[in-house]
Amino acid sequence: MKTKFAIVLLLVCSLPNCVVAQKFNRAVSFASNFEAPIPHPEQDKLAQEKLAQLKAKTGKRPNIVWLIIDDMGYGDPGCYGGGAAIGAATENIDRLAREGLRLTSCYSQHTCTPTRSAILTGRLPVRTGLTRPILAGDKITKNPWADELSLAKLLSDAGYTTNLTGKWHIGEAVGMRPQDVGFDEFYGFYPAQKEISQSIDARRYPDLVLNPELLEDYYDIGANLNLVHGFKGGKTTNVSAIKSTEEMGRADQVLADFTVAKIKELAKSDKPFFLEHCFMKVHCDNFANPDYAGKSKAKYAFKDNVWEVDMHIGTFMETLKEEGLLENTFVFVTSDNGPQMDAWPDAGYTPFRGAKGTTFEGGVRVPGIAYWKGMISPGQESDDVFDLMDLFGTALKLAEVSYDKLPDDRFYDFIDQSSYLLTDQGKSNRESVYFWWGSVETAIRMREYKLHTKVILPKSKNLYIDMSLLVDLGLAPWLFNLYIDPKEQTTVGHRRNAWLATIGGQLKAHLKTFKKFPAKKIGLGL
Amino acid sequence: MKTKFAIVLLLVCSLPNCVVAQKFNRAVSFASNFEAPIPHPEQDKLAQEKLAQLKAKTGKRPNIVWLIIDDMGYGDPGCYGGGAAIGAATENIDRLAREGLRLTSCYSQHTCTPTRSAILTGRLPVRTGLTRPILAGDKITKNPWADELSLAKLLSDAGYTTNLTGKWHIGEAVGMRPQDVGFDEFYGFYPAQKEISQSIDARRYPDLVLNPELLEDYYDIGANLNLVHGFKGGKTTNVSAIKSTEEMGRADQVLADFTVAKIKELAKSDKPFFLEHCFMKVHCDNFANPDYAGKSKAKYAFKDNVWEVDMHIGTFMETLKEEGLLENTFVFVTSDNGPQMDAWPDAGYTPFRGAKGTTFEGGVRVPGIAYWKGMISPGQESDDVFDLMDLFGTALKLAEVSYDKLPDDRFYDFIDQSSYLLTDQGKSNRESVYFWWGSVETAIRMREYKLHTKVILPKSKNLYIDMSLLVDLGLAPWLFNLYIDPKEQTTVGHRRNAWLATIGGQLKAHLKTFKKFPAKKIGLGL
Repeated sequence: MKTKFAIVLLLVCSLPNCVVAQKFNRAVSFASNFEAPIPHPEQDKLAQEKLAQLKAKTGKRPNIVWLIIDDMGYGDPGCYGGGAAIGAATENIDRLAREGLRLTSCYSQHTCTPTRSAILTGRLPVRTGLTRPILAGDKITKNPWADELSLAKLLSDAGYTTNLTGKWHIGEAVGMRPQDVGFDEFYGFYPAQKEISQSIDARRYPDLVLNPELLEDYYDIGANLNLVHGFKGGKTTNVSAIKSTEEMGRADQVLADFTVAKIKELAKSDKPFFLEHCFMKVHCDNFANPDYAGKSKAKYAFKDNVWEVDMHIGTFMETLKEEGLLENTFVFVTSDNGPQMDAWPDAGYTPFRGAKGTTFEGGVRVPGIAYWKGMISPGQESDDVFDLMDLFGTALKLAEVSYDKLPDDRFYDFIDQSSYLLTDQGKSNRESVYFWWGSVETAIRMREYKLHTKVILPKSKNLYIDMSLLVDLGLAPWLFNLYIDPKEQTTVGHRRNAWLATIGGQLKAHLKTFKKFPAKKIGLGL
Repeated sequence: MKTKFAIVLLLVCSLPNCVVAQKFNRAVSFASNFEAPIPHPEQDKLAQEKLAQLKAKTGKRPNIVWLIIDDMGYGDPGCYGGGAAIGAATENIDRLAREGLRLTSCYSQHTCTPTRSAILTGRLPVRTGLTRPILAGDKITKNPWADELSLAKLLSDAGYTTNLTGKWHIGEAVGMRPQDVGFDEFYGFYPAQKEISQSIDARRYPDLVLNPELLEDYYDIGANLNLVHGFKGGKTTNVSAIKSTEEMGRADQVLADFTVAKIKELAKSDKPFFLEHCFMKVHCDNFANPDYAGKSKAKYAFKDNVWEVDMHIGTFMETLKEEGLLENTFVFVTSDNGPQMDAWPDAGYTPFRGAKGTTFEGGVRVPGIAYWKGMISPGQESDDVFDLMDLFGTALKLAEVSYDKLPDDRFYDFIDQSSYLLTDQGKSNRESVYFWWGSVETAIRMREYKLHTKVILPKSKNLYIDMSLLVDLGLAPWLFNLYIDPKEQTTVGHRRNAWLATIGGQLKAHLKTFKKFPAKKIGLGL
């Protein structure tokens, strides 16, 4: 795509029938392969001026720091209704929320590989093929990264130092590792915590851990217990292997120490940096770091780990402050999906219906806190929609990477939300969030409405999802008003809503993008 | 009871086997007809000193202001996870929480008459007979107030001016009205909003409103649409009657105006005052005040009314400030029970299981915010248990009313929580909260555990309670750890908990108090 965004917008809005502000769907397309944003020219101008002023002061583009917690529920942090009230205070996360922008309609994908790949590609998992968590034993027939362009690569090419610390979970084979797809440096683990712990925790997995033959088989199918240190170009070493639940419990301290040292090192560089820190915690299986066991009031390992993750976030912020980086660093704290309730009680809390693995709010609505000293005013809150993929577009804007750098043979789902995040009482530039369950489209959110065309329901009577059914709602989709029914209990249908067909139409328009730009399959199935 | 609390405590703790701090049940009884408090001598001393210093400064005892919202859910205010995120910002309530103490384990009774009577008598509804909402047509065979002593009477006798504005709902007959039981002045409505609106809203109740004969019958059984102005001694006038849904929508503005004028008047007096302002809103049926319709982002009447209630709270606080009363006034904001989900969508939000009418958390866990400039430090939060009945004991302490004034022929369930509320990081003086459904005991909370012996379940598949069943759990009570399972979904039973029998024992001890002090029946049934 060669034309500039602003020019295209101007053309569209000059048309005589342009009544953008009065339409239910306020988004205006600027190119057939990009999700259409809601135009906010004044807000865009304000944010642009803010960024320009900062750059004039600092002489460089801002740093970008993402702090991704694993499987933390919407309700786990205190500032989202949990915290001390549910046995694990989160004072550092709460402070960031108080001093920054707290998003209350921030959406992830329904599981972790999908979210993690989506935020690095700006594309829905169904487009990249990364539709579900990669597990040991998976046969990926086509490296999705072979033709995906990561944010790390884009920022790296644009002069940023790019670092990923912690959990990766978007492929372990050569060509799929962080150090292969644009990160200058990776220090962390390829799989999720549970993939490691199931081969070391004899109490929970005796059938595997106490059976040497099976354990050998498990390593054969690709189980990887190593803390890995990799560098762009391919040089990769195994630092150590997790051999006990104690070591697993300590892993996040090791990762946090690395990130702290890295921040100090990066602070000395003239280059701006992009640092993605992905906690292993609070994904099951949770083992408390022996140094912090019982730190939470609840005393459960999950809760101790919420406490620990919060503590590390405090340390990171303190380090950024000490290094004088706060004013020139955009920080975003979030979770990759809702709580994994089939691991309960080793699981988080969402006030909403459903959990990780569903596209009910419980599965996909996550904490989202944007902090930037001097650039985001303290005490901001917004319930406008934000898709974690928008972190991709926002990063491009901050790093001044032109959309010219993006190939035009594919569809991009991200929205640049820099003006939403940086403006006081800013409005989201995104009109719709689309929900997929693997390669099955299930729901859409527009404004306060959520329309489900398919739902994932538990087979058993509780709300957990260990045995789930995908139910096609056919001609009777469920429409919820999330303001009056945040728990998605009673569909308002067309009886209480004028926009059922309109919202359905928006979903159809979304599905049409796959005609011109077909979904990719990489062998993960579903 | 003639002995002083502190002396009795000292005696109890001098016993050789006194190992209070190490026991699961930390409460220590000081008299057989009072709920046993957890002793916190240091905290008590600190609070006492604070109160003494304030009195030395102001020369009088503090004012007490209760702001009771009707049927607002735990999750409705922004500071409890709702607010703008669910379509109705609550900036004034949120500010009070930020600048005061936000309680996250604050409990009401399961419906409104029970809560309203319990906080004014310091006694459980099952003891006073006020076990369920009084409805037009109820035949009360015995005036419960004939031998109940209200807080209003106690404070009035102790030199306080006592005012109740707004909803009463603890009896309309002579002898049962606020002006009969200790309030100097009452300006408000006897019944709940819905009792009024069902005789004026032809859209929702055509079968009654459009049938003159039935309507006459309805007035005959005691329906009362009047805004009443009553004075101690009995003088009572009907100010006006609600004749339209518009007038119903405006009622809370009329009440708020009265309270604002009253605060200004009371500020001029040398006497301290007790003011209970009970909003009619947000009880169903909600009609937006025509002046504020659409003020909430959600635009629903319920949400507009959340916005309006919040606005009035802001006005009250502004008035207290203007009159120089903030430093000498204890303010408490709460709701009388959880959201009434069978009125949905004209209903609030709780993240918890169940709703008004059940003793699951959704029915009884309510917002509770204590604000007192200079006496309660800003930003305090606590998940220790607090029962709204404790407002009674706390008021006695603030007003320096001795327990000698309380008859000793009955059991008192309140706890004095002044030291909990007034001390930084204070600890609750209450060990257990007991839950009753009418005259049926159903559950107990101790620490983070909730034990149900009986549950109220919906007959239909959703979580609402329009058709509910009372299920006796018999020998298999449900035990939940509310830290790891705030939504009460999976009982931990004795498999994951060492205290099942202990907590059950505490409940038995509670039931024993009814042997010496039998429950009262007033003809309400159940």
